[in-house]
Amino acid sequence: MPQFLSTRDADFDRAFTALLGMKREDSPDVDAAVAAIIADVRDRGDAAVIELTSRFDRLDLTPETMAFSAEEIAAEIAKVPAEDRAALELAAERIRAYHARQMPEDASWTDAAGATLGWRWTPVSAAGLYVPGGLASYPSSVLMNAIPAKVAGVERLAIACPTPGGTVNPLVLLAASLSGVDVVYRIGGAQAIAALAYGTQTVAPVDKITGPGNAFVAAAKRRVFGKVGIDMIAGPSEILVIADADNDPDWIALDLLSQAEHDESAQSILITTDAAFGQAVAEAVTARLRTLERRAIAARSWEDFGAIIVARDLSEAAALSNRVAPEHLELCVADPDALAARITHAGAIFLGAWTPEAIGDYVGGPNHVLPTARSARFSSGLSVMDFLKRTTLARMTPEALAAIGPAAERLAISESLEAHGLSVRARLDRLNRSAG
Amino acid sequence: MPQFLSTRDADFDRAFTALLGMKREDSPDVDAAVAAIIADVRDRGDAAVIELTSRFDRLDLTPETMAFSAEEIAAEIAKVPAEDRAALELAAERIRAYHARQMPEDASWTDAAGATLGWRWTPVSAAGLYVPGGLASYPSSVLMNAIPAKVAGVERLAIACPTPGGTVNPLVLLAASLSGVDVVYRIGGAQAIAALAYGTQTVAPVDKITGPGNAFVAAAKRRVFGKVGIDMIAGPSEILVIADADNDPDWIALDLLSQAEHDESAQSILITTDAAFGQAVAEAVTARLRTLERRAIAARSWEDFGAIIVARDLSEAAALSNRVAPEHLELCVADPDALAARITHAGAIFLGAWTPEAIGDYVGGPNHVLPTARSARFSSGLSVMDFLKRTTLARMTPEALAAIGPAAERLAISESLEAHGLSVRARLDRLNRSAG
Repeated sequence: MPQFLSTRDADFDRAFTALLGMKREDSPDVDAAVAAIIADVRDRGDAAVIELTSRFDRLDLTPETMAFSAEEIAAEIAKVPAEDRAALELAAERIRAYHARQMPEDASWTDAAGATLGWRWTPVSAAGLYVPGGLASYPSSVLMNAIPAKVAGVERLAIACPTPGGTVNPLVLLAASLSGVDVVYRIGGAQAIAALAYGTQTVAPVDKITGPGNAFVAAAKRRVFGKVGIDMIAGPSEILVIADADNDPDWIALDLLSQAEHDESAQSILITTDAAFGQAVAEAVTARLRTLERRAIAARSWEDFGAIIVARDLSEAAALSNRVAPEHLELCVADPDALAARITHAGAIFLGAWTPEAIGDYVGGPNHVLPTARSARFSSGLSVMDFLKRTTLARMTPEALAAIGPAAERLAISESLEAHGLSVRARLDRLNRSAG
Repeated sequence: MPQFLSTRDADFDRAFTALLGMKREDSPDVDAAVAAIIADVRDRGDAAVIELTSRFDRLDLTPETMAFSAEEIAAEIAKVPAEDRAALELAAERIRAYHARQMPEDASWTDAAGATLGWRWTPVSAAGLYVPGGLASYPSSVLMNAIPAKVAGVERLAIACPTPGGTVNPLVLLAASLSGVDVVYRIGGAQAIAALAYGTQTVAPVDKITGPGNAFVAAAKRRVFGKVGIDMIAGPSEILVIADADNDPDWIALDLLSQAEHDESAQSILITTDAAFGQAVAEAVTARLRTLERRAIAARSWEDFGAIIVARDLSEAAALSNRVAPEHLELCVADPDALAARITHAGAIFLGAWTPEAIGDYVGGPNHVLPTARSARFSSGLSVMDFLKRTTLARMTPEALAAIGPAAERLAISESLEAHGLSVRARLDRLNRSAG
């Protein structure tokens, strides 16, 4: 059974703090192995990647077969049932429309001193997207990573996706094709991250790497950070549902289970204002767990990390949710907008009982790559901003320099940076001579 | 002497690639020491911080004296000469005005399917700013880190600044005060980062840590990343100047030296279309190096990492600059806007010869915390965005769910995530029953 807490309990705060502090992930320490793999790929390029792929993925590649050919992709895509293709196309279209609205504006203005200031956004030139192989090879994640990159204007977008024993998910290739991905490599693990970051004879280096992966991939991303940009290192998925008594317990149970089924380390929390409703949801979860395909995983997650919390009112519920800073937050209450206004930290909010979190995983439009492990306190989900960078712009006229240059010179002197001051002074002296 | 290259040289590409790949920084490996310090601070809190401050900074603190009191701050600030205060106030005002324009807009819209989508920006609740002690204790960096945080709406902003032997720079305290910083701790090193990230009895934990520091600080920031957000790990400063022959060689020499004087590992590169002008700049640098206060540092940087490159034309110069992706880029040419349009990767651009880079360090308005070591290919300077996070919003009506829900269900099934599909199906079934 998951924890059943009430904010009226004498030791609630201790129990809630313990819930927040639970260590859900126990990553193996693969850092030394990953360092060796990266060094090998930097040193030997293709030869190292091919050897490691043979060893880890039981797949013998050559430089020529490292990437899928256009014909191979077309043949795989042809296997996709029409209904799956239509669903993926709808998802791609909606994700594209949402992310297109995120494109930020350039700016330029001239201020009272006569300085023209502003900034300009430009896309990352090339990005690499890691897609896990096997069971966690999700076409929806391909869309969620690739479409923002293409909307941002990334010129070259490469996917690395291991194909253990040669097996690939045709839907992954279709999602890549719908997103405008330029090349899909049959490589994975730390060797794929190293190849994308440093390049090999066959794999052109990229500037930014995104996408989920196992412990080896995560450790490799940490190691190449700095050489290239990376997205966040995602932890296990989480959902927090705030629900009043006016909900179908089965709907809420399914929403909780839709995170729990991801991973034994996932966490699902219900906060409700009604103890009897909380009990009904617990029973609905138990009932659903009897038949769910992934019941072994979901039950483990729910029993180890699940919680039902009874709060005095919605205001208290919002405050608790803000301490959790959940990745996904469902507000199944009469006035979800009013409750959302009280939320200060959450990756994504799903408003009202007609918005199950699963809609956001696929077709809602917003990104499903979201901050986990309480990092919504300081970070955001994936967006076009992750594939753009801002260059600031400044242009002084002689008059503007005359107005603000002396202050710069003064501060440079106070910081003992003489050349800084002189670079301003030399110009001011010219102005003074011209004026004199 | 620095390198003197021409794009017409037979081996130019090799030499330029070597210039790009130069390892300028040789950070000592302090990771094990830092791990021990962080563990000690997590374990013993204030006691550990006080002990480490006594050992490293020769300063005996108590929990009561760990932060400057209001009276102490007022007494230090009173020492600042009026002209320095006025310069710092001008800088603060201009930085505030620039960053206020960066505040992003919330968004909300309803699409054709009837789904209401959008996002909302909220500030990080509490941020910590690291300010080095001693010579590199720059008041301008306090403004550049603290003002964006306060513009973003950060409620609680703490500074950690070591005061070796008790010495503090009054301008740092004035800058903190002008920026609205809430508390200034007399602590530094990895112990300060650990205290800000995990909290102690006296230091309240923050959600995000920014600011420059030595190898211990950088290693500590890497280690606490995930528990809190961090800004970039900055490398040594860089400038690239593109200048035509129509410039005063002394101005350009001073601009190159204003990076070189920061650090022996700094890098200054001139790209010019005129070999004679390049030679004249080299001579001007040599002349200035005779008398510059920080000539030992600047000469080391210029000789080891400096370069003058003669390009065939400005178009070639822009292409070379894009390969460098410089932190600071000066465009000292007749039409800097036209040249800027060809620049795809740069942290900050300074347009025209009347805009020395030093203006941007202090009073221009844009931030001086900028991506180094070619990371402008994938990242941006510090901004209000670093202290904000985006929560995505989605709200379905029953009709919207009927329109797009079946596609979500289909994709969930294709990914073998049954509960995801059922959470949508249970709601669609209700709709069908109501309609039937």
